[in-house]
Amino acid sequence: MFTYQTTVKIHDTDAAGFLFFGDQFKIAHDAYEAFLDAVGFSIQYIIQEEKFLLPIVHAEADYFVPLSVGDRITVQLQIESVSKTSFQILYDFLNDYGKIVGNAKTVHVAVDKNSKKKVSLPDKFVEAIQNF
Amino acid sequence: MFTYQTTVKIHDTDAAGFLFFGDQFKIAHDAYEAFLDAVGFSIQYIIQEEKFLLPIVHAEADYFVPLSVGDRITVQLQIESVSKTSFQILYDFLNDYGKIVGNAKTVHVAVDKNSKKKVSLPDKFVEAIQNF
Amino acid sequence: MFTYQTTVKIHDTDAAGFLFFGDQFKIAHDAYEAFLDAVGFSIQYIIQEEKFLLPIVHAEADYFVPLSVGDRITVQLQIESVSKTSFQILYDFLNDYGKIVGNAKTVHVAVDKNSKKKVSLPDKFVEAIQNF
Amino acid sequence: MFTYQTTVKIHDTDAAGFLFFGDQFKIAHDAYEAFLDAVGFSIQYIIQEEKFLLPIVHAEADYFVPLSVGDRITVQLQIESVSKTSFQILYDFLNDYGKIVGNAKTVHVAVDKNSKKKVSLPDKFVEAIQNF
Repeated sequence: MFTYQTTVKIHDTDAAGFLFFGDQFKIAHDAYEAFLDAVGFSIQYIIQEEKFLLPIVHAEADYFVPLSVGDRITVQLQIESVSKTSFQILYDFLNDYGKIVGNAKTVHVAVDKNSKKKVSLPDKFVEAIQNF
Repeated sequence: MFTYQTTVKIHDTDAAGFLFFGDQFKIAHDAYEAFLDAVGFSIQYIIQEEKFLLPIVHAEADYFVPLSVGDRITVQLQIESVSKTSFQILYDFLNDYGKIVGNAKTVHVAVDKNSKKKVSLPDKFVEAIQNF
Repeated sequence: MFTYQTTVKIHDTDAAGFLFFGDQFKIAHDAYEAFLDAVGFSIQYIIQEEKFLLPIVHAEADYFVPLSVGDRITVQLQIESVSKTSFQILYDFLNDYGKIVGNAKTVHVAVDKNSKKKVSLPDKFVEAIQNF
Repeated sequence: MFTYQTTVKIHDTDAAGFLFFGDQFKIAHDAYEAFLDAVGFSIQYIIQEEKFLLPIVHAEADYFVPLSVGDRITVQLQIESVSKTSFQILYDFLNDYGKIVGNAKTVHVAVDKNSKKKVSLPDKFVEAIQNF
């Protein structure tokens, strides 16, 4: 399990007073970027050096407790599954009391950077994310 | 069915070259705000005048075709279901050729503005969204 | 003068209840993108087909009246000046009563897409934005 | 001088490949929120407990070097000036090599939370930000 910590910023909230639901996905992706960096496949490296991209083809989230500006959040990220051409990531969002306040899931596929067609996930990438 | 049209802005895209997945939820919510306005329950009105809020407790989306800056998008919004305390909205995203490039779903509950506890959806609101 | 109309979305606001200041720049850029499209140099075209990019090297904004979700905004865009390698754009933000509620300014330079070095603004581009 | 560190996220970039200019203001405000928290006047506290708000009436930024996803940024924040009803904050953005890649400035005024009219900055707030 990979852990990422952040604080809800005021631009993540809206006039109803709480985190805008779309920004929970943004925070999930921030955690994913930190995870990729930790396993040696930073997004910058993938975009600049690799032949594949990893677009998200499905995303979902549950919201259990409204979050406010200043709330410190721990995101617990784990790989749920990996197949030949795709992988799924789960994110649990915990507040300072260790309570799960929400979750998210993203499903990624590997595509060729030029043709945008599905390709197999490179072995070295699968190894990297599974060995964490 | 309610229809909303927009164009993908460059700040909705990222360095991989396409719409950032989280911003598809933002666009879905833009369509939802336009829908609420059309049925006489604008978000501004709800926030300022009503006793309830309608937080999202679940959201999900599928991404079939990568979207680029400048792409014109039609969002087709429909109420999927309405229960005593919640409702679900579906969004189809179509490109200029009428092809479905993605979709989204949001599940909303009614809560009391002060206590944040679940309450029944006001009849007048249910009528308004169902009569559209 | 080029005119662009939009509505303040809830994700443009924050928990203090009003438009987040950074999102006024986002709206200014939305107007700029619509302007570029109107003069035949859409951002998508520039990114995909041209040899130059037009990064912003300076931006500023004034905020006279707080804006709320649902507020309809008219942006009046005009070219303030054009030099050999740069141009400045002014944006006035008006509410539904025609009152100026804020403004913004962006300064753009032309750079070569590969070297990222300053280059002259292409004549055809200067003509296009000046002839509007 | 107050120091804040962050990393450019992919949603801060756009399809031109670099940080979207508006998101440099967002990062500046993140630094400002961390600063307010450090001096005992967190935004959450101000919004919930105080009688004043501190809206931004002017903002500006310069961009010297394009920033990419993954770039680690240090924001050096300092109070430029404090008057009876307003204050100005300067932000320098440094990359990993200590080079200044951009800056920003925000001008804040104190307003009454209810009337939205200008008020004097509370002494305790002025002390807090000046004594840092």
